[in-house]
Amino acid sequence: MSEIPNVSENTSESPSDSSDETVHGLASETEEQIVAALITNDEAGVQALIDDLHYSDVADLLERLNEDDRSHLLRILVPEFDAEILSELDETIRDQVIDDLGLESVVQAVAELETDDAVEIIEELEEHEQQHVLGAISDEDRALIEESLSYPEDSAGRLMQRELVTVPTFWNVGDTIDFMRQNADSDDNPLPDQFYVIYVVDPAHRPVGMVWLDKVLRTRRPVKMAEVMEPDMKVIPVTTDQEDVAFLFRQRDLVSAPVVDEGGRLIGAITIDDIVDVIDEEHEEDIMRMGGVREDDLYDAVLDTTRSRFSWLFVNLLTAIVASVVIGLFDATLDEIVALAILMPIVASMGGNAGTQTLTVVVRALAMKELTATNTTRLIGKELLVGCANGLVFAVLAGGVAWAWFNNPMLGGVIAIAMVVNMLVAGLAGTMIPLVLDRNDIDPAIASSVFLTTITDVVGFFVFLGLAALILL
Amino acid sequence: MSEIPNVSENTSESPSDSSDETVHGLASETEEQIVAALITNDEAGVQALIDDLHYSDVADLLERLNEDDRSHLLRILVPEFDAEILSELDETIRDQVIDDLGLESVVQAVAELETDDAVEIIEELEEHEQQHVLGAISDEDRALIEESLSYPEDSAGRLMQRELVTVPTFWNVGDTIDFMRQNADSDDNPLPDQFYVIYVVDPAHRPVGMVWLDKVLRTRRPVKMAEVMEPDMKVIPVTTDQEDVAFLFRQRDLVSAPVVDEGGRLIGAITIDDIVDVIDEEHEEDIMRMGGVREDDLYDAVLDTTRSRFSWLFVNLLTAIVASVVIGLFDATLDEIVALAILMPIVASMGGNAGTQTLTVVVRALAMKELTATNTTRLIGKELLVGCANGLVFAVLAGGVAWAWFNNPMLGGVIAIAMVVNMLVAGLAGTMIPLVLDRNDIDPAIASSVFLTTITDVVGFFVFLGLAALILL
Repeated sequence: MSEIPNVSENTSESPSDSSDETVHGLASETEEQIVAALITNDEAGVQALIDDLHYSDVADLLERLNEDDRSHLLRILVPEFDAEILSELDETIRDQVIDDLGLESVVQAVAELETDDAVEIIEELEEHEQQHVLGAISDEDRALIEESLSYPEDSAGRLMQRELVTVPTFWNVGDTIDFMRQNADSDDNPLPDQFYVIYVVDPAHRPVGMVWLDKVLRTRRPVKMAEVMEPDMKVIPVTTDQEDVAFLFRQRDLVSAPVVDEGGRLIGAITIDDIVDVIDEEHEEDIMRMGGVREDDLYDAVLDTTRSRFSWLFVNLLTAIVASVVIGLFDATLDEIVALAILMPIVASMGGNAGTQTLTVVVRALAMKELTATNTTRLIGKELLVGCANGLVFAVLAGGVAWAWFNNPMLGGVIAIAMVVNMLVAGLAGTMIPLVLDRNDIDPAIASSVFLTTITDVVGFFVFLGLAALILL
Repeated sequence: MSEIPNVSENTSESPSDSSDETVHGLASETEEQIVAALITNDEAGVQALIDDLHYSDVADLLERLNEDDRSHLLRILVPEFDAEILSELDETIRDQVIDDLGLESVVQAVAELETDDAVEIIEELEEHEQQHVLGAISDEDRALIEESLSYPEDSAGRLMQRELVTVPTFWNVGDTIDFMRQNADSDDNPLPDQFYVIYVVDPAHRPVGMVWLDKVLRTRRPVKMAEVMEPDMKVIPVTTDQEDVAFLFRQRDLVSAPVVDEGGRLIGAITIDDIVDVIDEEHEEDIMRMGGVREDDLYDAVLDTTRSRFSWLFVNLLTAIVASVVIGLFDATLDEIVALAILMPIVASMGGNAGTQTLTVVVRALAMKELTATNTTRLIGKELLVGCANGLVFAVLAGGVAWAWFNNPMLGGVIAIAMVVNMLVAGLAGTMIPLVLDRNDIDPAIASSVFLTTITDVVGFFVFLGLAALILL
């Protein structure tokens, strides 16, 4: 792709082409060529095309292929399968790929990957598979991985890199540079593959400061590391939840932070690039849960998807029946005035939509920790005002439509009143439901909208039909 | 907070306390103390409390206060207002803060901030305010900022840092280290405040490779930079959209990438920490648009919120009226059988929810660029199968309820058929609507759900009432 030797080529292409080439991992032509080569069983052709790809793109390709093509491709790739591909795969697809490749592929991958990536793969395996893999790798790798697995899922301990460069407080810049040059190729005391920070530790191995590498490079050899270190750093306890770690990185604009065990000893570090995946995961959770689907939905098989979506739809069926029961209370009224049946979905639907607007804002604000005692009360007040204001506007609009359509000003008045009430209720419910769920440690993204639409449907139908029964009959 | 000297203290606290302290930017007690000090007009108390806070926390506090308290706090802070606070503020609140502080505060902030942060603030100002600020800063700053502003909004050019360390291909590690030591405190040729990478450039200032600082540190002085550089790097054209840049960083696990102008010359660099904000922005856009609200909704005033939510609700009113017109076609049928009015919302609501599930998965997959020619057709097939399967299950459930409730097996049959049809349509519409919008360069997050519910309402009411008219009358 646009690696350096191609820069001049790049600029001669049309702008849209070159930007397309830059941003897309895997070009669709390449994808089609590989699929075509798979169909004609041209293994050499497939291999040649794959060789040009980044491992992320191979992972994307495996995710997009159907099961047969995927198995076929894996048979071609297996002799020199890149372990990084496994890390990049969606969980559902990774399971299938591991089934196809066999557990030995995981053993080999774990040996090649950094601890945090290896843990990510191992933690998803079945218990007996985990045992098999852990039994087959080196003692050293096993010890590191077992320790990582001992930390809670989704904690800083699972996220952190174990490989660190630490120096004692009394070293100077020269000692540090010499140490790194000496150990660059050593097997006994290997340096991490890549690092941005050197941690300064006290004799009890507690972090006392961090030194950015650019600081080391711009400082003369005799200067003490303790003089150039930043002592002000956020220290992350190893059991901290990864969402809280992500919040901290964003809030403090952190790039790297030390992770400590219960005794305050430095045991790892988290860098901002580990956080990007956490942020994406979090966001996926939020958006998928609000839509009533599981995170892996896209790659799940038909049966799994059907089953996982069923429960949400079942809850919705129950709430829809509740709304129907409310309508049923007014069957005599409906029998009298059929216009009510025609108009009633308008009130319910406007309430549902206005409530969803409020709900979205509140769920998002809770996810970003933007709501506190100081502004929550004000938010509720604001949502009531907004609900009231838009309620009045839409009361006039819907009332006017109803009046004109059925030539009945009283009917217009009834729908107008019902509209204001339902949009006020929508604003209140849209705010309160996620707040109450959150306070009870239930993820507001997962359950808010079903409660909300139940309330706006029930209130919408009840107020509209009830007022009609009172006023119009 | 838990800065290093406190590590030992930290461990003696209860675990929940210490983790709470670690993850929350601004403790609610501190917030309450500041509010209390503001009310009693205890300026010294406020200043003391603020002095202990990180600038992000001060920004959060300003966002959460009401207008009067905010103005009051700003009057106290103004003598030593930290420019970083401005960068951290939500846009709506930043406008108000700048109004309170006066434009001179922006002039001062721009002088203190890095170019990319300064541009972020200036680009949101009114034209005449921009001119004022640009006229008041140093020529050097102005040139850099005007150049950044000349790139399209939300492009790599606005995102990149201009301050870079570049070395020619013939330099060795020793030359590089000496250069950095010499320029550490120089005013003529200042090094960036912080950097992770040194770029190697050819005589035309085109990037030919990058060298991570840890590589510099572990290599002996005589080795050429060109020998230790990574020549394989993604080069980002300056006009690339920031969402595409973010995609690239995630796809390629990048930490830093060079930005080039049209001639391929190196003009800046983007690092992963710049990308985190872009990812958050993108997420916010997606989730807010799907809920029918603007991104700044939380901090907008009542009137702005009411107005910005109005348009979405207005579209919804129109579609609700369309659905009512469809119901109106069957007024004679409804007049005959009131049970139809009671049951009809169930069919529409189940279709709407099933469609929203599909829609969420497809909108998310499009945002993450996970859909291509290879898997789109399969996805449509899958969604139809899922819609059919869940449609059959809920046909039996809803049909059974209707039969039992109204003691009418034919009515049960009608709702069952309508349910299958509507859930099939929901699966198809939930897939096709975002795909078609995306292909026409309309953000599927913003417009999909209104089209979807129109279709599931209209189809739900039409099939259910139409079948009832045919079969039951």
